[in-house]
Amino acid sequence: MTLYNSKNQTLWLDKSNAFIHIIDQTKLPYAQETKALKTLEEVCHAIVSMQVRGAPLIGITAAFGFAFALRDNLLNSKKLSINDIEKKLLDTRPTAVNLHWCVARVVDAVKKVSEEQQASVALSTAQLLWQEDSAMCNAIGDYGYEIIKQLSLKKNKTLNILTHCNAGWLATSVLGTAIAPIYKAHEVGIDLHVWVDETRPRNQGYLTSWELTQAGVPHTLIVDNSGGHIMQHGLVDMCIVGSDRTTAHGDVCNKIGTYLKALAAHDNHIPFYVALPTSTIDWSINNGVKEIPIEQRSADEITRVYGLDDKGNASSIIAVPKQTTVANYAFDVTPAKYVSALITEKGVFKTTAEEMQKLKGLCV
Amino acid sequence: MTLYNSKNQTLWLDKSNAFIHIIDQTKLPYAQETKALKTLEEVCHAIVSMQVRGAPLIGITAAFGFAFALRDNLLNSKKLSINDIEKKLLDTRPTAVNLHWCVARVVDAVKKVSEEQQASVALSTAQLLWQEDSAMCNAIGDYGYEIIKQLSLKKNKTLNILTHCNAGWLATSVLGTAIAPIYKAHEVGIDLHVWVDETRPRNQGYLTSWELTQAGVPHTLIVDNSGGHIMQHGLVDMCIVGSDRTTAHGDVCNKIGTYLKALAAHDNHIPFYVALPTSTIDWSINNGVKEIPIEQRSADEITRVYGLDDKGNASSIIAVPKQTTVANYAFDVTPAKYVSALITEKGVFKTTAEEMQKLKGLCV
Repeated sequence: MTLYNSKNQTLWLDKSNAFIHIIDQTKLPYAQETKALKTLEEVCHAIVSMQVRGAPLIGITAAFGFAFALRDNLLNSKKLSINDIEKKLLDTRPTAVNLHWCVARVVDAVKKVSEEQQASVALSTAQLLWQEDSAMCNAIGDYGYEIIKQLSLKKNKTLNILTHCNAGWLATSVLGTAIAPIYKAHEVGIDLHVWVDETRPRNQGYLTSWELTQAGVPHTLIVDNSGGHIMQHGLVDMCIVGSDRTTAHGDVCNKIGTYLKALAAHDNHIPFYVALPTSTIDWSINNGVKEIPIEQRSADEITRVYGLDDKGNASSIIAVPKQTTVANYAFDVTPAKYVSALITEKGVFKTTAEEMQKLKGLCV
Repeated sequence: MTLYNSKNQTLWLDKSNAFIHIIDQTKLPYAQETKALKTLEEVCHAIVSMQVRGAPLIGITAAFGFAFALRDNLLNSKKLSINDIEKKLLDTRPTAVNLHWCVARVVDAVKKVSEEQQASVALSTAQLLWQEDSAMCNAIGDYGYEIIKQLSLKKNKTLNILTHCNAGWLATSVLGTAIAPIYKAHEVGIDLHVWVDETRPRNQGYLTSWELTQAGVPHTLIVDNSGGHIMQHGLVDMCIVGSDRTTAHGDVCNKIGTYLKALAAHDNHIPFYVALPTSTIDWSINNGVKEIPIEQRSADEITRVYGLDDKGNASSIIAVPKQTTVANYAFDVTPAKYVSALITEKGVFKTTAEEMQKLKGLCV
């Protein structure tokens, strides 16, 4: 796969190098529409409105936005400082540590060169971040595949895997994080079935379901409330989810509801894995519940539900009466003690102090 | 309140005694429409389609349906046996033990009298069941109120209560089960706020929110995924839910997702109460996870979402693409160890062997 290719990629660079194409994820799974992002403003809007989403993809998209802003600086009289650009990008999604990491990579790179070179260096850095992410997803896929293979050999019939939100290729450069091992296992013929959490309020489970349908991976969509029941009844052999931000202790901040599934997995002795690039680990914090500020998003995400009308046209309805007060917490934190292991591009690490120290040694 | 009154009641007997009026709960919270149920078929349809819902209300409605069937037997040449009527009613909702209990009460009563008297005895029994339920809800409300009062005194600021699904007056004769204590506490001015779980797939949380809005009780609607996060952050002081079926050990079968909230409450040292009439206790079973068959309902409940279009008209959309495989488990079981206590019309009982034995002594 290459950066100019669009097969099973949600972002690719136009051959002109002047803009990126994205799949507008707010239109999925009802319609597959692409969109061109040409400016910093368009990139920021795409991130805020979740046309692009998923920790790794947000970071890469932001890096391209940085490059476009620097390029436009060369053409426009009103210039944005590096700090201005950085701030605009970081403000789009406060929880995403990977966004910070990608933007910091661009800042570091452009600060080393002259002003004239900055735009092209930023663009190269964005491309490099894409390629690195692609290599990371592949590595995560390979490490996670080994876990699936072992569990599958042990079970000797269909292996049931539960996932929450979307951490497939739509969330990254290619393959995904949590879903990458599933793709790799399915590809070699391992008999598996995926339980896909709907993931209210934004129903990213529909994206996972859409991806799995395209890849021919057997799966069943369930409401977020169902996971505990199916775990109690032996219908789940492992859970695997992504992470937006991970602490030095191994606490995992991921889509709201992840913590509830981790509790149920723990209660039913089911392994709970988190797949993540190490760039989403924030080594500066330990206690995720206390230290990670949780983004509250618009009530509209809960009150308005999107879909198709009976004629098959894209439509939406107000599901929650207008006078209702609504709170919309976007993420929660799963304490490390409920995480069996982190599956990273550097290998699989338990969330013990010793293993986290080892992982830190490979990262920092 | 009386059986002929319609204020904050979802079912009342017409003055003619020939039929019942119900609030069609499938239309709520977008429109308040009443419906007349005149025959067994109409009653069965109302239960299956969830025009009436909530364990106590289903039982009472079924009892009226029984009476109407016996009355129609007197008029029609094609008669239904008592067994036929019983079977039709029990088949409407396999999980509802209270439905069995109410139908059995009618069967017992009519078997004691001559065929000519059966219809009127059945009607009296249905009315008696309504009155008993109303007394039960009041008693549950009083016992639960004491718990809220004590917690409120201890906290000395707004008490936050989380509830799942709808166990308010829409689910019973009056007041509700889980919500009855909240109404009683609010009425005397206790400072409280209710977190209302959306409760996918059928969004019964919107009913709870509608009830609480009408009563002026402060509340906030959240998606089912949020409960763990707010519990981790000290934003929940107690949970209170209803029950569709409870075992002799105190395992609670309630709306899907209840178990996940109980796990989160346990993990965060928050009391988790279940309010129920003792008629929902099935003394013949112990292990809820192993012994209670869980109803699977139509996929359409997940794929189609109801609400209002932008012009304010009742509408629905297909939220889940048609080719998606969906599983819709309606209930789950919360093991007794995660239940702080059962709030019943006979008092508050912990789910220890000793206390459950004491409760059984008062019931059987």
